[in-house]
Amino acid sequence: MKIGRLNHVGVATPDVKAAAKTYADLYGAIDATEAKDFPHLGVRVVFVSVPNMQIELIEPLGADSPIHKFLEKNPKGGQHHMCFEVSDIVAARDAMRERGATVLGTGEPYIGAHGVPVIFVHPKDTGGVLVELMQAPDEGAH
Amino acid sequence: MKIGRLNHVGVATPDVKAAAKTYADLYGAIDATEAKDFPHLGVRVVFVSVPNMQIELIEPLGADSPIHKFLEKNPKGGQHHMCFEVSDIVAARDAMRERGATVLGTGEPYIGAHGVPVIFVHPKDTGGVLVELMQAPDEGAH
Repeated sequence: MKIGRLNHVGVATPDVKAAAKTYADLYGAIDATEAKDFPHLGVRVVFVSVPNMQIELIEPLGADSPIHKFLEKNPKGGQHHMCFEVSDIVAARDAMRERGATVLGTGEPYIGAHGVPVIFVHPKDTGGVLVELMQAPDEGAH
Repeated sequence: MKIGRLNHVGVATPDVKAAAKTYADLYGAIDATEAKDFPHLGVRVVFVSVPNMQIELIEPLGADSPIHKFLEKNPKGGQHHMCFEVSDIVAARDAMRERGATVLGTGEPYIGAHGVPVIFVHPKDTGGVLVELMQAPDEGAH
């Protein structure tokens, strides 16, 4: 198992719409989606695209959002995770465990904000960086 | 002025060699440079390449390293900055100021670890994210 391309960097923010406006107004990154709510994931998301990847702006949604703790520590927001594509998410999950890493939650891949299955690897395994692994989206969908 | 591709994510770490070994052993990301010291920047760097970008592993070098403060707050390391390419670094610097952002240091672009001029934009301007802008490397060098 080896990781492929970086799909996105997840950036936590208290307000995805305000953050998207910043990337547009300050950096000219105007290629952004509308804000979309993912109640089962506890997040509201805007994707800002640059030529080779996306910035996933993430705002907490609901009391149990996994982003609350991060924003308590970093009230203005900040870089939250890096997501790399893998060709087989189940094989990747198994490889993570075989190699001694901790897969978050039950370890069962679940559908993330991109509509494909994902897992998260504990930041303690990657020098403080939370890593998401994502089943590579169908190339035809790009 | 608009940003282009993400060139790299900067990841601070207390030990670039150990971090590079983690990306290789755990994630199969074996395409990495040797560690290189940049005394004038106060950092030791390893670049780990994935198909569409690089992970810039950064270790503090010397007492005045700009990474010390980050590692005091995050002893295991973590995501430190995102670097986007721009076609004209001076025009980008001027645009940042015109648009109300704070360019770190003197604001004069200086040669970064990739051998091209860079500037940094204060994290307060981008929702807690430290943003580096880099003169796009010569395409012929890719």
